[in-house]
Amino acid sequence: MVQKKIVLATHNQHKRHEMNRVLSSMGITIVGLNDFPQIGDIEETGKTLLENAFIKARKVFELTGIPSIADDTGLEVNALDGAPGLFSARYAGENPTYEDNINKLMLALEGVPKEKRNAKFRTIIAFVDFNKELHSEGIAEGVITEIPEGRDGFGYDPIFKPNNFNKTYAEMDIEQKNKISHRGRALKKMKKLLINYLK
Amino acid sequence: MVQKKIVLATHNQHKRHEMNRVLSSMGITIVGLNDFPQIGDIEETGKTLLENAFIKARKVFELTGIPSIADDTGLEVNALDGAPGLFSARYAGENPTYEDNINKLMLALEGVPKEKRNAKFRTIIAFVDFNKELHSEGIAEGVITEIPEGRDGFGYDPIFKPNNFNKTYAEMDIEQKNKISHRGRALKKMKKLLINYLK
Repeated sequence: MVQKKIVLATHNQHKRHEMNRVLSSMGITIVGLNDFPQIGDIEETGKTLLENAFIKARKVFELTGIPSIADDTGLEVNALDGAPGLFSARYAGENPTYEDNINKLMLALEGVPKEKRNAKFRTIIAFVDFNKELHSEGIAEGVITEIPEGRDGFGYDPIFKPNNFNKTYAEMDIEQKNKISHRGRALKKMKKLLINYLK
Repeated sequence: MVQKKIVLATHNQHKRHEMNRVLSSMGITIVGLNDFPQIGDIEETGKTLLENAFIKARKVFELTGIPSIADDTGLEVNALDGAPGLFSARYAGENPTYEDNINKLMLALEGVPKEKRNAKFRTIIAFVDFNKELHSEGIAEGVITEIPEGRDGFGYDPIFKPNNFNKTYAEMDIEQKNKISHRGRALKKMKKLLINYLK
């Protein structure tokens, strides 16, 4: 089997390992942006998660020549008409901490009762290579808790409790979270698309 | 149009420019092995030109992750049962000069009359990427002259006179040679395959 590479548009080693684990059985090795120091920040100027994911994947493909994958994720809160959505990572301003974003969301939902705190996490994964573009979507529905719970994970994990589970993402171990999370689901679908593509 | 790269398995800048010229209109940039100093010599252990071309293209693809093209060329002389063929580049031993090879061939054909000095040049071009392998073949029929003529080109060019031309490859300018040569023909076919593949 000819060994293949995919560049994942991230500096996050954890994300890279996770994708490597899922795709290595297909003879695919995931490399991260740490291997390409010449690639600077890529501006996410899209109007949707899908656009942003493809902006990043196409840019990395153009710069490296290697098939590339990028993802974008948003948290969509029903009571806020889908906010923070596309702007989840920068909800509380430029370069906010996870805590800044969580505090802002807690404030925005102050007084909103449990049964109206529904939200969904959505991840889009985009793949771009010489001859093809593919994408997948993963959604996890749940509720925003009234106080942060748990210390694992990152981002909004401490305040997101997926449906049918009595704990937040931040209270789950990484394997459990990967199985049911928006990102885990999008990744599983992307794997299927790649298997089919490589047939 | 998303810009694409292909690595050509050669250190020869002339070959790289030639392929760039043919493929740039498709949004493809050709990079050579000079950009990848970590890639050493690739042993050509195949039993055919096709095998050797794919050995090189697959190796470069595996090492770079970028779609790769390699070629292999042989001169097949009828009176010598197809020799030097696969071994054209090393006919006179390890690391011979062009002159060494030509001298050996002149000697092997000593006394063989004009009408029995037919030969053909054959080039195979192999393309390997994430999802596909393609290859093309280009053949130029001609005769081996009795003395070397002309100073351009390289390899066996001074003693190969293509059919319907009254001069050797080494007496042609590069544009004329590219139009009718084995390599030029294989390249034109590869371009068609790539256009079709990218549709």
